[in-house]
Amino acid sequence: MDDLLRFLRIPSISADPAYSADIRRAAEFVRDWLAGAGLEHTRLIEKSGAHPLVCADWLHADGRPTVLLYGHYDVQPPDPIEEWISPPFEPTVRDGNLYARGAADDKGQLFILMEAVAQLLRLNDGQLPVNLKFIIEGEEESGGGHIEEYVAAHVGELRADAAVICDTAMFAPGIPSLTTGLRGIIYGEILAQGAASDLHSGDYGGAAPNPLEALAQIVAALKSPDGRILIPGIYDDVLPPSPAEFETWKKLPFDEEVFRRNEVGSKELAGEPGFGVLTRVWARPTLEVHGFRGGYTGEGAKTVIPAKASAKISLRLVPNQNPERVQKQLEDAIRTACPPGIQAEFRLYSSSPAWSIDPENPFLAAAADAMEAVFGRQTAYIRCGGSIPIVGILSKTLSLPCVLAGFGLPDDRIHAPNEKLHILNYLEGIKSMVQYFNQLGRSASACAPR
Amino acid sequence: MDDLLRFLRIPSISADPAYSADIRRAAEFVRDWLAGAGLEHTRLIEKSGAHPLVCADWLHADGRPTVLLYGHYDVQPPDPIEEWISPPFEPTVRDGNLYARGAADDKGQLFILMEAVAQLLRLNDGQLPVNLKFIIEGEEESGGGHIEEYVAAHVGELRADAAVICDTAMFAPGIPSLTTGLRGIIYGEILAQGAASDLHSGDYGGAAPNPLEALAQIVAALKSPDGRILIPGIYDDVLPPSPAEFETWKKLPFDEEVFRRNEVGSKELAGEPGFGVLTRVWARPTLEVHGFRGGYTGEGAKTVIPAKASAKISLRLVPNQNPERVQKQLEDAIRTACPPGIQAEFRLYSSSPAWSIDPENPFLAAAADAMEAVFGRQTAYIRCGGSIPIVGILSKTLSLPCVLAGFGLPDDRIHAPNEKLHILNYLEGIKSMVQYFNQLGRSASACAPR
Repeated sequence: MDDLLRFLRIPSISADPAYSADIRRAAEFVRDWLAGAGLEHTRLIEKSGAHPLVCADWLHADGRPTVLLYGHYDVQPPDPIEEWISPPFEPTVRDGNLYARGAADDKGQLFILMEAVAQLLRLNDGQLPVNLKFIIEGEEESGGGHIEEYVAAHVGELRADAAVICDTAMFAPGIPSLTTGLRGIIYGEILAQGAASDLHSGDYGGAAPNPLEALAQIVAALKSPDGRILIPGIYDDVLPPSPAEFETWKKLPFDEEVFRRNEVGSKELAGEPGFGVLTRVWARPTLEVHGFRGGYTGEGAKTVIPAKASAKISLRLVPNQNPERVQKQLEDAIRTACPPGIQAEFRLYSSSPAWSIDPENPFLAAAADAMEAVFGRQTAYIRCGGSIPIVGILSKTLSLPCVLAGFGLPDDRIHAPNEKLHILNYLEGIKSMVQYFNQLGRSASACAPR
Repeated sequence: MDDLLRFLRIPSISADPAYSADIRRAAEFVRDWLAGAGLEHTRLIEKSGAHPLVCADWLHADGRPTVLLYGHYDVQPPDPIEEWISPPFEPTVRDGNLYARGAADDKGQLFILMEAVAQLLRLNDGQLPVNLKFIIEGEEESGGGHIEEYVAAHVGELRADAAVICDTAMFAPGIPSLTTGLRGIIYGEILAQGAASDLHSGDYGGAAPNPLEALAQIVAALKSPDGRILIPGIYDDVLPPSPAEFETWKKLPFDEEVFRRNEVGSKELAGEPGFGVLTRVWARPTLEVHGFRGGYTGEGAKTVIPAKASAKISLRLVPNQNPERVQKQLEDAIRTACPPGIQAEFRLYSSSPAWSIDPENPFLAAAADAMEAVFGRQTAYIRCGGSIPIVGILSKTLSLPCVLAGFGLPDDRIHAPNEKLHILNYLEGIKSMVQYFNQLGRSASACAPR
């Protein structure tokens, strides 16, 4: 596991330009590691102003399926940094878990794929049971468009029969899980301007518009205290899960009270009335505010009316919602709620539609079998409330079925302090992927190459 | 003016503990300067955990009035620092103005009093026409309680006939102004907690409560988009200005449209419907949000639902409003507006009631005469929407009439980037104070010492 630890020590934070040298180091680390393992054509794909892609392949399993393996080497910022028990970029083992930023999302899980391939190459004298193409990006956490552009321009080069991604979580410890649906997202910032410059609230309180208050009023107009989104039309296109899916979810071992206490830790759960937690998180659109900028946020008191302020905001989308349409609905609602004296606009950072896969797909079924064999328990088909834009891109641009085999756990605290990966899951994940690729190689007929 | 420039170069930011050494340097600078000018008993009053007071006196004008001179040597934080044309702590002269953090609030205006006294001592062979006591603090911008405690414990030592403070603004260029009323303030932070730790909005959006949204909903419940405070009972105790005061204000040269364009610079003015701008700012309570903390506020996107968030908030109070009562009304309103799953509380940082002085007071009248003589124009009696807690303390604890002779201008941008002081006002301010102290010495009968 030493190589993974070295990988985790690189603070490859893609959202912050201050870390661009570390981003590059992480990309070079992956490229060199794959070359050392026996992959071919290991290379960085560069683009000015973007973080490099890492590509590699092995294409000598004639007549066998070709699998595209995706992961990302970038990570979320670690703040609030003071809440980490061990520093985010000094991986530390405690109680069978590996703690570090990126341990689960996605460096550790990317390493499951890398290690599985390396083991197969070692065990089979440099041969693999299937054809493989790696494409690994460094802008997943910052919504960058490099990979989308590259995929669109290299459809032929990236042709495959299925994509495999390890960037999701198991439903619960011990339950091997495949994710059959992801929510989409619209992420952006509401920018508000009042006065021409910051003003003193004693001299101007009662006369100058306050953009922070305007943002509060706009946010309060977008979402009710009981969790309903108030944007007109937002629920119009929502496609509910099939009755069969609903039935499967009901059988999952899930206790709302345990979830509230152990995972969320709040006094009460929040969310849209009339739906259970799994449905709210997996199959209903939601709106969240992620931060307000502007005014004084240091220690102590400052009586300022800021000239400008902004709110980072996102909407999660479900199947059949169109991101462009939802963005327009959001922009209309912001305009309607904006108080006098304030100019407000929405700046889009990134968007992607929701995604789902047919549970009958043979590449999915083979993964379920492999994981069941390793974990000794039936593989659950679940959804995930998060957004993985690449799944939409691979699904749409390359027409690939995407197999989302996740080995994280729901309490891995990805995007939060003290992110971790359960080490046993890491090891079983590698075994599962070894088994899966062997199985795909054997049952070439079921998963016929195109 | 070299000494003032040296004083302005010290970044004596009282709200930020990182600047405590500079706070001390600024206090020592004032102490040493006053000693050099000929004041007696120049000393620092120390208290653990607090910024020092600077005290000095000259008490040899037997049978003449005793005047307490107040100022503060601390300044506001300079952020957003990138908006300063010249650096905040490198005083720079442009177009007859001196630009620096503290130029007007209050280092420059404190220096008007210090320079006036030093000139009188130089001109009169070390004698002064009145008895003087300086008390200068370093916690005015951070709401610290050192001076309040000290004044309460040294009522006898600080006995005087009137207090003189230069920490306000003239109504407009060329119009000498005395401030006869100040708003009070309640400043604090609403602290909100949802989940036990930060969570990912994909995995928990729709289930975890979001304290930033709760704060937005609370703020929206406290103040309407048209500027009315919605806290029940908030306007009950408001004492409106007298009809005579209203009449005086109507005669002031004030144009709302010019004010909007030149001072505020917003599309429209904000504020409580049914009142003119001067009344809204001088004689109506207002509520402002100064900053939201929590979540992600760096560059780019982070899909976090923060566990904790807070909002810095203040209420400005007018005569007859009781700060404790208003605080209770605010806390009740926060409790009522707090959505399910969130725990919210209000943490008070500082509070002070509004203040006003009888326009007939002889110390005020003498100041008006002196300023009229120097500026060649009738002195205006105005109010100020800001809060100067020390005025309430000197007024209440020492029973002193407070003469607020301000030489700032409304566009001095105190508390904001590019704070300035008009150099002509600085010089006329010194002349006015020299004239005032001479006049108080001559007309000892009108301002009889107690």
